[in-house]
Amino acid sequence: MTYCCGILVRDGIVIIADTRTNAGLDNISTFRKLHLFEEPGKRVMALASAGNLSVAQSVVSLLSEGIENPETGELERLTDAPTMFQAAQRVGRALRIVHDSDAKALEEADISFDVSFLLAGQVEGRRLRLFMIYAAGNFIECTTDTPFLQIGEHKYGKPILDRAVNYDTDLYDALKINLISMDSTIRSNLAVGLPIDIAVIRRDALGIELNYRIMPGEPYFTDLRERWSAALRAAHIAIPRPPYATRPVESFAPEGVDTVLPRAGALANAAGAQLTAGQPAAKILQQQKPKR
Amino acid sequence: MTYCCGILVRDGIVIIADTRTNAGLDNISTFRKLHLFEEPGKRVMALASAGNLSVAQSVVSLLSEGIENPETGELERLTDAPTMFQAAQRVGRALRIVHDSDAKALEEADISFDVSFLLAGQVEGRRLRLFMIYAAGNFIECTTDTPFLQIGEHKYGKPILDRAVNYDTDLYDALKINLISMDSTIRSNLAVGLPIDIAVIRRDALGIELNYRIMPGEPYFTDLRERWSAALRAAHIAIPRPPYATRPVESFAPEGVDTVLPRAGALANAAGAQLTAGQPAAKILQQQKPKR
Repeated sequence: MTYCCGILVRDGIVIIADTRTNAGLDNISTFRKLHLFEEPGKRVMALASAGNLSVAQSVVSLLSEGIENPETGELERLTDAPTMFQAAQRVGRALRIVHDSDAKALEEADISFDVSFLLAGQVEGRRLRLFMIYAAGNFIECTTDTPFLQIGEHKYGKPILDRAVNYDTDLYDALKINLISMDSTIRSNLAVGLPIDIAVIRRDALGIELNYRIMPGEPYFTDLRERWSAALRAAHIAIPRPPYATRPVESFAPEGVDTVLPRAGALANAAGAQLTAGQPAAKILQQQKPKR
Repeated sequence: MTYCCGILVRDGIVIIADTRTNAGLDNISTFRKLHLFEEPGKRVMALASAGNLSVAQSVVSLLSEGIENPETGELERLTDAPTMFQAAQRVGRALRIVHDSDAKALEEADISFDVSFLLAGQVEGRRLRLFMIYAAGNFIECTTDTPFLQIGEHKYGKPILDRAVNYDTDLYDALKINLISMDSTIRSNLAVGLPIDIAVIRRDALGIELNYRIMPGEPYFTDLRERWSAALRAAHIAIPRPPYATRPVESFAPEGVDTVLPRAGALANAAGAQLTAGQPAAKILQQQKPKR
């Protein structure tokens, strides 16, 4: 499993990825899944992958070596794409090439062709963009309404993003929230783990502003995890207990059962049992064996 | 979708379930998924379902009408099971009966036989127990190590449970935390929604202590949601921003690419692109079209 999340705010993009891979629970390794590229002042790109590692690495290798443009015959690499849109298209094309070559064999081995990518970046003179590319090679772009995209094990870490992130969030606050999201994921899914790779791309800077790997025991992230835990504990303790008063227990049985005609066979086992909420015991005692 | 969660603490069990069902996003309804049964002083049971509603309801109907014991020929209902273990077995048997009758037709309609149950309760003279029954009819029991079980859309609401619940948590604190977990799920998945059904079963009370439905706009739950949001906001704001300093950007390309022998064809498109982290531009310019 993997968790990668990109957040797009007014000032730039923060993208983070864990590094854990597993082939079964007894075969866990560390692989870098966040790939960075910069040609300072010209272009900057970050590509993160989730899913089948062999597929993801093949896509990255293809994108590095170049894939042939079916129309021009030219070899096109991710990093020389003239726009981010075309860069995302190239990721999709590479995915389809790997799909054509590997998917059938994977399927025969009962392995699904399961991979997705986040692609963030900016080309000189164009805007900063964040894409998510699906296994089929199609893709969506992050917009300001929901200014983040996630791949991999995304659910555990989504609640904090839903609550805390918007397009006007400060760039390094976005990094902090992204790390909280990663922490929630790591706590709930063993297959997501440290080290964590981080990249910060400031809008119009055309370079990687921050490239960092959080190793286990790293002081800031350790402190963040402890503070977050303590704050959550304090938060739920500060909420009053529910004041609810009970109601009579409702019927256990769906209404339909109640309308079945009586028959003798069912009586033996019904003794002592009673459905509540106005369903008299006598009625229950009349319930029959279902016709199937 | 559905979210149901049962928490087992020293003083009892809290079980909650949402009521939203959907057949496509454009067909959303409210159905009770938490079924309660009590024979005060004798036995108490709560059964919650997630997954295909027709399958879940059929199982509940079967359990109410009674299923034939293959050995004795007697008709056995959930509510007259002599122990909670046998009650869980009966849920499993009912599931298998519905599977035998419906799974093939569902499969032909491309609908998976997807359902699971939480079963909580206590029979006089025996201990309070909480089970999760899978679609195959097998089941697990909640233990004190991880004192909760979830069915349905479980991931969004799991982080708070992982952090906040243990076996010694107060019964109504467990209800509160369960509601926070539900809130996180509702916020992140439209297919989980109010009303929320709640049951509290105190250990050895052999009755439902609290049976309550939270309707939209209900003051306590509304206040809980607002307090929790505000506390999370305060919590992440209180954490300092990351102090990280950048490292040089690492190679975009996997090492393997670097070792490919040069060939002429790839040169055209490589102009202007540059992989970083010590990989000289000259090397990149030598990268060739991959052999596939």
